[in-house]
Amino acid sequence: MAKRPDEAGLIETYLAPLAGKQSFSFLDDAAILDMPEGFELVVTSDAIAEGVHFLKGTNPARLAQKAIRVNLSDLAAKGSKPLGVSLSLGLSDDWDAGWIENFAEGLGADLKVFGIELTGGDTFRSPGGTVINVTALGAIRPGRYVSRTTAKPGDAVYVSGTIGEAYLGLLSARHDLAGRQDDLSAVLERYELPEPRVQSIGIVSEFASAAMDISDGLVGDLEKLCRASGVGAKIEAQNIPLSAAAMGILEKNPAISLIDLATGGDDYELLITVTAERAGQFERQALADKTPFRRIGEIVSGNGVEVTGPDGFPIKTAKRSYSHF
Amino acid sequence: MAKRPDEAGLIETYLAPLAGKQSFSFLDDAAILDMPEGFELVVTSDAIAEGVHFLKGTNPARLAQKAIRVNLSDLAAKGSKPLGVSLSLGLSDDWDAGWIENFAEGLGADLKVFGIELTGGDTFRSPGGTVINVTALGAIRPGRYVSRTTAKPGDAVYVSGTIGEAYLGLLSARHDLAGRQDDLSAVLERYELPEPRVQSIGIVSEFASAAMDISDGLVGDLEKLCRASGVGAKIEAQNIPLSAAAMGILEKNPAISLIDLATGGDDYELLITVTAERAGQFERQALADKTPFRRIGEIVSGNGVEVTGPDGFPIKTAKRSYSHF
Repeated sequence: MAKRPDEAGLIETYLAPLAGKQSFSFLDDAAILDMPEGFELVVTSDAIAEGVHFLKGTNPARLAQKAIRVNLSDLAAKGSKPLGVSLSLGLSDDWDAGWIENFAEGLGADLKVFGIELTGGDTFRSPGGTVINVTALGAIRPGRYVSRTTAKPGDAVYVSGTIGEAYLGLLSARHDLAGRQDDLSAVLERYELPEPRVQSIGIVSEFASAAMDISDGLVGDLEKLCRASGVGAKIEAQNIPLSAAAMGILEKNPAISLIDLATGGDDYELLITVTAERAGQFERQALADKTPFRRIGEIVSGNGVEVTGPDGFPIKTAKRSYSHF
Repeated sequence: MAKRPDEAGLIETYLAPLAGKQSFSFLDDAAILDMPEGFELVVTSDAIAEGVHFLKGTNPARLAQKAIRVNLSDLAAKGSKPLGVSLSLGLSDDWDAGWIENFAEGLGADLKVFGIELTGGDTFRSPGGTVINVTALGAIRPGRYVSRTTAKPGDAVYVSGTIGEAYLGLLSARHDLAGRQDDLSAVLERYELPEPRVQSIGIVSEFASAAMDISDGLVGDLEKLCRASGVGAKIEAQNIPLSAAAMGILEKNPAISLIDLATGGDDYELLITVTAERAGQFERQALADKTPFRRIGEIVSGNGVEVTGPDGFPIKTAKRSYSHF
């Protein structure tokens, strides 16, 4: 085990240098975050815990990045520009200087990539395993917050990017998967390092009638959106967008179905609805922006999500989404 | 074990009803927090973890309150009015409906007491033990943030309230303490339920040249303030304010010294410095406000904290503060 600094050393050497000018913290009790004029404040918190959201032994730089990115994904789904993150880091008893150095590298890299400020936070002992909690703060124009409660029957349902790679990545990390090495690496990367759709904030804010990010599985998360909006949805399985890597792996693992991908977690893609009248305009704008959105179905009255197979018949699924409990 | 709801039930039944109107969360990915016009945003995060910050089996209502209050204490030390809190709750595997109901009661009570909003958050499985992370958001007038980096030689050093009861409360919880039942109950209450000095926000903001809250022990925290400000401090042990309960317990437990109280954690009192010119005015104002501040020493050039005993000689202390690692 590399030498381990004490708490003050940990903070002063590794974390404080990453905090912004205005963020006196971690060396103070709190920090100031500059809010741009004329915007509202958007807040979201998401934690990732060892043994639940990530496997023991995962590269700590990736953990820092994942903890940030799952929160930026939530902000993006609301149409909110990220400003800063606050970090609360619970360290399991086996951390050392190498671990925290690597963690800080990942953290610093993502602060730059996303142009956000670290507004300080907290470190503490977590004997039961590493827990990384991030609260992300974002800005939004008044009235432009996109809720998940506002989908209406007739709205078209879209997802960004591709679905199911992170689920395959988790299987790959557990060596439960056959496939070409390139494909396995691609899905593992996707599992470890989500790409929050921050570049889609503008188009979401402009066009979405409702939105959320997909973190616990497409079908289950669409059910949550429907429940919050008091509606149902019908989607077609063959419209769910898959990457080449995912298709390659599906071919070599006949036991894994499209429904497994549509109910597996960690996609961090956007699930949005757009009114029928604006769907065409939205699609043209998405094309012009080179932001990949695929129409997968529509919102209906009633409740629940019906997934239709290639034969036109509903697919029955027992598991709908990843459960944290 | 009482019946346990699933994650959706847990959130919908117990947590979502506590969230404010603007806070669509926990039923959404994020929440909006109304910022008053003409104020800056202050952010702080602090987590409490089972086996580190609290003992297994502690009343969950108290845990919710403690998690909120340690954060409000940080805001108070900066002169910042609390607006809202975001909660990230990691549940150990033995929680049940009774536990979360009780937790939600404590949470709801404190939201009312402090007039703050719950801006949502996150729940997750934490197999290693309960972890409660709170990020608190506050407002402050531009330029009024009180840092811990700005103490100057000649400034008077003050603490609010009384010191060391929470440390005795921890010993009492572990049954390591002799004393009158009333005294033992009083210090236990103080350990479990800190009283953040929110009523002192105005006076801190107006008079403090530097400030922090005392969470890891008076002496060690004063050392942190000194280090951050590039100064030293001299304090007199007999000026450290003690409650009647603490004095009663000290009498019956000769092995416990005043220095133990001054280096024990969890006081959540304010440690502030005031310039010599303004000290008199500050004391009169504190008296008029009925906010208890005691002058315990002064800031000097150099570094480190010297504690002088009743005989006028410096007291040597090995342990300076509670360490989280």
